[in-house]
Amino acid sequence: MEGAYQAALPAKKITVRVPATSANCGPGFDCMGLALTYYNITTYEVTDEPGFKLQVRGEGADTLKPHGRNLAFASFLRLWNKYTGGERIGLKAEMVNNIPLSRGLGSSSSAIVAGLYAANKILGSPYDKETLLAMATEIEGHPDNVAPALYGGFVVGYKDAEGEVHSLKLKIAAPLKFIAAVPERKLSTALARQALPKTVPHADAVFNSSHAALLTAALLSGRGELLGEALKDKLHQPYRAHLIPGLQKVFDAAQKAGAYQAIISGAGSTVLAYAPAAADGAAIGEAMCAAFRAEGEACRYHVLSLDEEGAKAIEP
Amino acid sequence: MEGAYQAALPAKKITVRVPATSANCGPGFDCMGLALTYYNITTYEVTDEPGFKLQVRGEGADTLKPHGRNLAFASFLRLWNKYTGGERIGLKAEMVNNIPLSRGLGSSSSAIVAGLYAANKILGSPYDKETLLAMATEIEGHPDNVAPALYGGFVVGYKDAEGEVHSLKLKIAAPLKFIAAVPERKLSTALARQALPKTVPHADAVFNSSHAALLTAALLSGRGELLGEALKDKLHQPYRAHLIPGLQKVFDAAQKAGAYQAIISGAGSTVLAYAPAAADGAAIGEAMCAAFRAEGEACRYHVLSLDEEGAKAIEP
Repeated sequence: MEGAYQAALPAKKITVRVPATSANCGPGFDCMGLALTYYNITTYEVTDEPGFKLQVRGEGADTLKPHGRNLAFASFLRLWNKYTGGERIGLKAEMVNNIPLSRGLGSSSSAIVAGLYAANKILGSPYDKETLLAMATEIEGHPDNVAPALYGGFVVGYKDAEGEVHSLKLKIAAPLKFIAAVPERKLSTALARQALPKTVPHADAVFNSSHAALLTAALLSGRGELLGEALKDKLHQPYRAHLIPGLQKVFDAAQKAGAYQAIISGAGSTVLAYAPAAADGAAIGEAMCAAFRAEGEACRYHVLSLDEEGAKAIEP
Repeated sequence: MEGAYQAALPAKKITVRVPATSANCGPGFDCMGLALTYYNITTYEVTDEPGFKLQVRGEGADTLKPHGRNLAFASFLRLWNKYTGGERIGLKAEMVNNIPLSRGLGSSSSAIVAGLYAANKILGSPYDKETLLAMATEIEGHPDNVAPALYGGFVVGYKDAEGEVHSLKLKIAAPLKFIAAVPERKLSTALARQALPKTVPHADAVFNSSHAALLTAALLSGRGELLGEALKDKLHQPYRAHLIPGLQKVFDAAQKAGAYQAIISGAGSTVLAYAPAAADGAAIGEAMCAAFRAEGEACRYHVLSLDEEGAKAIEP
């Protein structure tokens, strides 16, 4: 039986596209992220028949299951239930997943944002993007990936004195090329978090503050030549290096092949190189993957740009 | 007897103006500084009669002495000797000092930059500004004050992996008003440094990185309304608050009177409020000084702007 909301829906079906994201950005641990031109595409359909139906192509096709703990369904229903007060529906999702799982490219954030964005659109957009961001942050626990996944671009997030989370989308002045070297090895964010110390030397904290300022300035003013230095970090990468065999060699290979600098994307295992727009992305990707393979690690790479659009409906 | 260099000098006398500076800028401990429209003016004259002559009006008139350890003489001679190989001269300096001593407004950096700048000019400018900055940083130990004193504006400094110091002058997008509340009480930088811990919580380091990025973004994009949050800090101010009685009350008074936020200038004791260009600077200054006086601390204030010029010759 169809409920009141379902009967009044502007559309019962929508296809949304959400970008991959790369958090931490060198010195911006837990506070910076950017969106990449690499996408998951999900078609949601609200049905009269209760329960979840799922069809997955690509990443996660073997592992993602049609149940309510699946982030794509859970986030859709979170918004749906908030607005409708719990109107019961069936939900069908068809996913074309490009973003690899557990590699530091924001696949879970992409699923969360896709569900919230799609539910909001199907309901006639009752909530603004700030509300979607707050809900996504609540589900994910931090805004570093969900903010750029939703807004696109380069985003600085921060907690205010009351612990409330805010995000600021910034305008990058000159185009960059991003090369993601994705090793076969997955890395759990929980494990990567455990590797971090509770305290750090005061001088290391100062180092990261100065480099976070420098990175922001370099990106906003189009000073790519500063990125080699600006992307350096002392708050997470040194503590996680042992989790990604050959990391420094991959960094070095990227620079030698023409990148400004490479960093661990999110909690890893992907390494992301920042390069001039005119750089030979394939050469950089090959060099990084060769360095991974020399450590016995299978690897593929993607040559990407900054996604400026964030989540969007591509159908209807 | 006059040496070869003296005979060939383009001029033997020069008057230089160097701005006051405010380092640390909230979350930018040891890496940010800006120049203020408040100046020390020094006239140097190279004489044939060996020895130092000094005339001081204003700040330091009672304490500054004509000897080679006086930073204004020592820095002049550092550059002079580097270039001439130690040609002996006499040196006469007339100072009009506005910048108070040991209050966190960069008075020593001003003296260092004045001496280097004047010696370079008198010698026909053999060195570029980068060289002057390197020499000034070597004398002062850090670039936070000497860089804005030399270049003007808002400057981000950073150490690279080799420990070499660099500075980046950034363009602030919208004018601000700065109100310096200067208490009677001096504060030694050494004492203020001792108050800092050797290690800090990882979360505090992340807090400052995010806020340093936010501050940079707010200044570069003219988003003054973000400064209330962006100027917050967890790396130095909480540890130094006890050295400046009434600090939080002075901060609060500044905000209540219309400032975005106030911070400890350098190592203190001055408190600097960042305010909209249209704010009532006198009202903010009065409110801050009233808060200091309520703690039994005499106080004066100055309503200032960003100095964009840095050190310059004003005569001849």
